Amino acid sequence: MVDLKEETLVSSFLYMAMCLEPISPIRARQERLRALMETRRHPFLLVTNLTNVRYLTGFTGSAGILLLGPRRGILWVDPRYTLQAHQQAEGVGVVEEKKGILKEAAKWLRKNGVREAAFEASNLTCEQYEELRNQAGDRLGLKPAGEMIEELRVVKDRGEIEAMRSAGKLTAEVFAEVLPQIRPGVTERDLAAEVEYRMRKKGADGAAFETIVASGPRSAHPHACPSSKTLQESELVILDLGAILNGYSADMTRTIFLGEPNRRVRKLYSAVLTAQARAIQAVRDAIPAGQIDSTARRVLARRGMARYFTHSTGHGVGLEIHERPRLRKGETVRLRSGSVVTVEPGVYLEGLGGIRIEDTVLVGPDGPEVLTPASKEHWVVS
Amino acid sequence: MVDLKEETLVSSFLYMAMCLEPISPIRARQERLRALMETRRHPFLLVTNLTNVRYLTGFTGSAGILLLGPRRGILWVDPRYTLQAHQQAEGVGVVEEKKGILKEAAKWLRKNGVREAAFEASNLTCEQYEELRNQAGDRLGLKPAGEMIEELRVVKDRGEIEAMRSAGKLTAEVFAEVLPQIRPGVTERDLAAEVEYRMRKKGADGAAFETIVASGPRSAHPHACPSSKTLQESELVILDLGAILNGYSADMTRTIFLGEPNRRVRKLYSAVLTAQARAIQAVRDAIPAGQIDSTARRVLARRGMARYFTHSTGHGVGLEIHERPRLRKGETVRLRSGSVVTVEPGVYLEGLGGIRIEDTVLVGPDGPEVLTPASKEHWVVS
Repeated sequence: MVDLKEETLVSSFLYMAMCLEPISPIRARQERLRALMETRRHPFLLVTNLTNVRYLTGFTGSAGILLLGPRRGILWVDPRYTLQAHQQAEGVGVVEEKKGILKEAAKWLRKNGVREAAFEASNLTCEQYEELRNQAGDRLGLKPAGEMIEELRVVKDRGEIEAMRSAGKLTAEVFAEVLPQIRPGVTERDLAAEVEYRMRKKGADGAAFETIVASGPRSAHPHACPSSKTLQESELVILDLGAILNGYSADMTRTIFLGEPNRRVRKLYSAVLTAQARAIQAVRDAIPAGQIDSTARRVLARRGMARYFTHSTGHGVGLEIHERPRLRKGETVRLRSGSVVTVEPGVYLEGLGGIRIEDTVLVGPDGPEVLTPASKEHWVVS
Repeated sequence: MVDLKEETLVSSFLYMAMCLEPISPIRARQERLRALMETRRHPFLLVTNLTNVRYLTGFTGSAGILLLGPRRGILWVDPRYTLQAHQQAEGVGVVEEKKGILKEAAKWLRKNGVREAAFEASNLTCEQYEELRNQAGDRLGLKPAGEMIEELRVVKDRGEIEAMRSAGKLTAEVFAEVLPQIRPGVTERDLAAEVEYRMRKKGADGAAFETIVASGPRSAHPHACPSSKTLQESELVILDLGAILNGYSADMTRTIFLGEPNRRVRKLYSAVLTAQARAIQAVRDAIPAGQIDSTARRVLARRGMARYFTHSTGHGVGLEIHERPRLRKGETVRLRSGSVVTVEPGVYLEGLGGIRIEDTVLVGPDGPEVLTPASKEHWVVS
């Protein structure tokens, strides 16, 4: 069994050693978390959220529990994942357990006389908590950890940014490939299938979310699912797509008009395009997230279109499609260099349809970098 | 606000009315649950598991909380889903809430002086429990409900069985269509992409799980993900696929050999095929689930192959890909007419590869009905 007791001296020594030699990104994440745990006075953290387990260890299986202590970590997995965990997981000991990995983690805490452990309250279910409570014994104090790992994930490291660039590029390429197929007669559902097929053919893990293809009046509903409706002449078509590549998601929307748009539609499109461009320009380190939202909203308000913009301007993206920060009205959290967010203003008019333009944008040291480079100017298809 | 107080008299009256007139499948599910709640002495049940919300109301949105009381039900949704909930949900009142649907449900319980409500402990997180606790006030007793709805879902109603037949048929058709593409030179990943593309084109909601294509030595790992490896001559190829159609999943596996199999591979295939056929024959009402497992295991044991069969024989399937019952060693739970299960014995030999044959099978009143009708005999492709 892996030893995971608190040994501050050794820990400090390791930290010094760390400063002398470069460590892997995964181990660096563990050390950043340990530093945060020390600040918050959590000697042990039980990680049950699988996205967080992946972030901290590299293990991508569909079941696993991580206990991170001041000096080492243990990853419990069931026999399906033993080999994979040994191949993938870094900086932690892997323990195979057939009969309940949470139970085993709890037993370990009891046997090793751990007095206090933090847990992920936004992930652990009441049932799991009971099991943990029962198996770990009364000496163990269990404390909700808050979302420490989610906080760390807000700032992407170099490898993560590279992964997101690749996911963004792949997504933009898929859009360019299917653009010739956005024509009257094709069904929304077939177009969505085409998008996801091309993602997979290009090596994506899959789609980050169910591809949205919404045409005509259906495009007025921001969350419309692809239906068997065929695209028609003189309709707006919203295509919202994103690939996952090596675990990281991209998110992008383009709107197309089939035929010759009238003046009103042109004005609406131009307003959304400008709102998005201004909002992207505003993306930089240390700016409050709410300011990106207000920048987009202001452009639309000046043209009397504010009431058609019915959702937030964007959200963080990374290992999950919706992460921190949220780019919404009044949000005071500040963007940080290394964060990746979406910028996606839109207008939705019942009966007429909707227009949304979205990119995934990196908060770079010198300003914004658009990670989903696909044309927004050629939106009229006739 | 919808009235949801306990009114036993009215409830009995409704029940009588119900017996006189046919009611919709959704309302019938709600009544079955109410009957179970009465037995277990739960006047109110808070349903947070979205699959269960869908099962009980028909609402398919990605956020919603249902409170089921003795006479009526309330479904809280956020503004994204108001229209959809009104269109889909049956037998419950829909309430739109902008600022936290769980909070609102809790407030409702407090305002209406509810003394006791059951909740889904295997779904509610500790954080949600705290919020519920804080908002609902001290008078409310919260009790874990056990998995009552999951119990009901074990027996499918007529509409569900029809949906599963369609999902099974679609899955089998997709297999037949891609069979000519299972040839040396194609990559596992492209084959998987092809499978999922064809599912979508045939109207599936999507794939029930990441399609498994595992070839050569990789097929010896039951959970291998599709890789960039190309299929080679003289290799085993496992294809494990399942479509979701109208919410219901199918699950099917076929194994193919590329070229001329030697005697050993032929023997292995024939053993798995026989094990699966016998296990399917054993599927009937009231048989302990473990007996299906032991039937398959016995066939393989007689041929000295028991040690290569490293997983359970099957699992229930329906709105989720893994449901009750589990067809595993020693399982005493009995199959019931109207249940749908997979039967999927397999053998896995490190270095050589794996063979698995799986069908989705309905426990019919007169015995098993295979819902994934695809050939198992034409497994040699040369």
